[in-house]
Amino acid sequence: MSELEQHNALNQSLNTLAEALQSGRFIRMRRLLSSLHPAETAHLLESLPPAERKVCWPIINPELRGEVLSYIGEDVRTSLMVDMDTADLLNATEDLDTDDVVDLLQDLPDHVMQEVLRAMDSQRRRRIEVILGYEEDTAGGLMNTDVVTVRSDITLEVVLRYLRMLGELPENTDSLYVVDHNDKYLGTLQLSQVVSRSRSMTVREVMSHQIEPIPANMSDEDVAHRFEKHDLISAPVVDKDNHLLGRITIDDVVDVIRDVAEHSMLSMAGLGEDEDTFAPVKRSVHRRSVWLGINLLTAFLASWVIGLFDTTIEKVVALAVLMPIVASMGGIAGSQTLTLVIRSMALGQLNDNNKRWLLRKEIAVGAVNGIIWAIAIAFVTYLWFQEVGIAVLIGIAIIINLLAASLAGVTIPLALKKVGIDPALSGSVLLTTITDVIGFMAFLGFATLFIV
Amino acid sequence: MSELEQHNALNQSLNTLAEALQSGRFIRMRRLLSSLHPAETAHLLESLPPAERKVCWPIINPELRGEVLSYIGEDVRTSLMVDMDTADLLNATEDLDTDDVVDLLQDLPDHVMQEVLRAMDSQRRRRIEVILGYEEDTAGGLMNTDVVTVRSDITLEVVLRYLRMLGELPENTDSLYVVDHNDKYLGTLQLSQVVSRSRSMTVREVMSHQIEPIPANMSDEDVAHRFEKHDLISAPVVDKDNHLLGRITIDDVVDVIRDVAEHSMLSMAGLGEDEDTFAPVKRSVHRRSVWLGINLLTAFLASWVIGLFDTTIEKVVALAVLMPIVASMGGIAGSQTLTLVIRSMALGQLNDNNKRWLLRKEIAVGAVNGIIWAIAIAFVTYLWFQEVGIAVLIGIAIIINLLAASLAGVTIPLALKKVGIDPALSGSVLLTTITDVIGFMAFLGFATLFIV
Repeated sequence: MSELEQHNALNQSLNTLAEALQSGRFIRMRRLLSSLHPAETAHLLESLPPAERKVCWPIINPELRGEVLSYIGEDVRTSLMVDMDTADLLNATEDLDTDDVVDLLQDLPDHVMQEVLRAMDSQRRRRIEVILGYEEDTAGGLMNTDVVTVRSDITLEVVLRYLRMLGELPENTDSLYVVDHNDKYLGTLQLSQVVSRSRSMTVREVMSHQIEPIPANMSDEDVAHRFEKHDLISAPVVDKDNHLLGRITIDDVVDVIRDVAEHSMLSMAGLGEDEDTFAPVKRSVHRRSVWLGINLLTAFLASWVIGLFDTTIEKVVALAVLMPIVASMGGIAGSQTLTLVIRSMALGQLNDNNKRWLLRKEIAVGAVNGIIWAIAIAFVTYLWFQEVGIAVLIGIAIIINLLAASLAGVTIPLALKKVGIDPALSGSVLLTTITDVIGFMAFLGFATLFIV
Repeated sequence: MSELEQHNALNQSLNTLAEALQSGRFIRMRRLLSSLHPAETAHLLESLPPAERKVCWPIINPELRGEVLSYIGEDVRTSLMVDMDTADLLNATEDLDTDDVVDLLQDLPDHVMQEVLRAMDSQRRRRIEVILGYEEDTAGGLMNTDVVTVRSDITLEVVLRYLRMLGELPENTDSLYVVDHNDKYLGTLQLSQVVSRSRSMTVREVMSHQIEPIPANMSDEDVAHRFEKHDLISAPVVDKDNHLLGRITIDDVVDVIRDVAEHSMLSMAGLGEDEDTFAPVKRSVHRRSVWLGINLLTAFLASWVIGLFDTTIEKVVALAVLMPIVASMGGIAGSQTLTLVIRSMALGQLNDNNKRWLLRKEIAVGAVNGIIWAIAIAFVTYLWFQEVGIAVLIGIAIIINLLAASLAGVTIPLALKKVGIDPALSGSVLLTTITDVIGFMAFLGFATLFIV
């Protein structure tokens, strides 16, 4: 079945489900839902409006609910979990990996979390509490404590016998970790080595030191960088004394990589990372209203600048007609530079050595584009209003504003980062404030000086 | 060494390198470069301005150049490869995985690619030509042909003996593929099963059917979705007759996942996916100029709308002062909806069942936010200009424009997708055109009707 067919099949499921929902045929819905992979069920739930979601959720097999939840974004997940009691939660999380359990528990109110923890068996609880001790967005919070360890002085023959004795290995196990008697990390023993090297060799001879252990307090973004940079599948996590705590596998890192990449885009529109597209109106209004309010302040600032020149506009109304062009071109050029710089910062490409080069380059791009479009705009303006003065004026204002846009596009995110503010979140507001103010100021100011 | 220390160390390297570059101390540079992981060298090259890049490149160990290139974005890579001759290219690609070789070859002019291929040994050439037969952005183009296959009727004992005979396994091998005598795919044999199950069991008893093979013509985005959805580490690729062609590993998919996530953000600013932050001014001017030109057309359209009401503005200059507020609020609200919808579409969450729900929801959000901010803006306007008429007018215009913004934010991307245009690329231009035109139209039009 091709992905397209799969996609259609999923859409088909959604259609059938929607129908079954409307006619209240719950048995049919249950049968349909039980035929899906938990990831597909998760996707299906995320695509449903809230009311339908609430109807569907109880129909899902209680034992699969935990896995389904682990595939759902935080926003939607929290809204589903509030209605579950401790027994439900325990049942749902029973078969999950420790790192997934922690993800779910962290969304719960503290007293509910404690209740669920108390109800677990003590070994599992201890393992989970280790992870809970670390911040959600660190290596410790990402890791899984289900690891298989071996000693360095045994032969591969013994390793193989030990693994057969263990039976099933944790999911996505591609390597074992070698530790000393104090549980200190010594190296990584890849399964591909275990199966391809001579059985009489010792672990010490075969193990690899290439994978550096990840400190538990490393940020999840840095973990993602390291996985990407070294094409890792899994990596060991250690505490500050090099004791092995767990491992991180790439499937958990993939979520971080996507979140990091999406974060900039969503932040630039004032949206949250886990924004639920189908959130209730009330929540959406609240979140976006704040953003509109902040932007309104900058809009009023721009208006105030225009207001300074109201007598000029009264005399030459063409200025009012043309002024949005100056502001808009500055805003577009600036947001191009800003987007590029924010992305370079996220990828860790910007540093003290090249930021001055980049600033010079962006100003050069702004100058050249400014001149090109100043000429074009001046020409059209002349044709439209038959006034050389206004045509020259708008050309000069465009050049000034595109230069200001380049300068602001590079310096704003660098300055914001220096003072610890997320450039993606506040960069675009600040940028358009600057391009609006400078654009109106230059255009209307020069007009006041030279034309009126 | 923590990631922060690593980061500082890399920055330190960059500083030393910059110094060495300026003083022309090439031996020092060479020593420095040879101490880095190829991924770090790649990162370092990407962070250098073009002139310094060209100086550094020849100093890098020729045998590592291929791996370094495989970690670099397309834009920068092409600029480095144009100066390499066939012997250089052959030398650089010698030790690379087939999929990485293909990535590099695809950036070369056709005749150079043919030359390099001719110079390879015939087995490697055949393998690479198989991959080259598929589009770059399909599963076939992503796959690696170095796979280890086994038959289903042998025991794990025999598998182990076979693997030991093979010696080293291809990088990131976490599973073997089971094929019949016609090379048709039968199932996946995970290494974790090989080491943990009884040696006397046959491959057929142990192999898994859970991982569905990926058709070679599946798009890379769909491949990424499937890997994310099912938390895969690797997956087999088959042709339409189910013959095993190769395998895709997660490290290749991670790049696709990041590109997909970044694509929307970069497109929304009119930037390309592989945009090199340190591209020469000329190239940057050209790319961005096109985007500014397109936006200029919409800006002129907005100006033309304002021009329709120039006599009204002449009489009530406060309208000119306030009109950017109406346009700006509409633009911000619309881009929030647009960003959300584009992201939902990229995640495959939008479908025929929920799009009408979403439209209704967004219009409700627009209405509520419209009313809230209309009141606030009307109030400030009254305080500023002491004119009830203008205050009421701007309030009404804000409500109308926020409703239009919601409607446009949902329908534009859906409509663009239907006609096969990338909504991320052209959505924001269309949206601001609509919010500008409707904003100015409503505010100045009603003013002409009721105030003047």
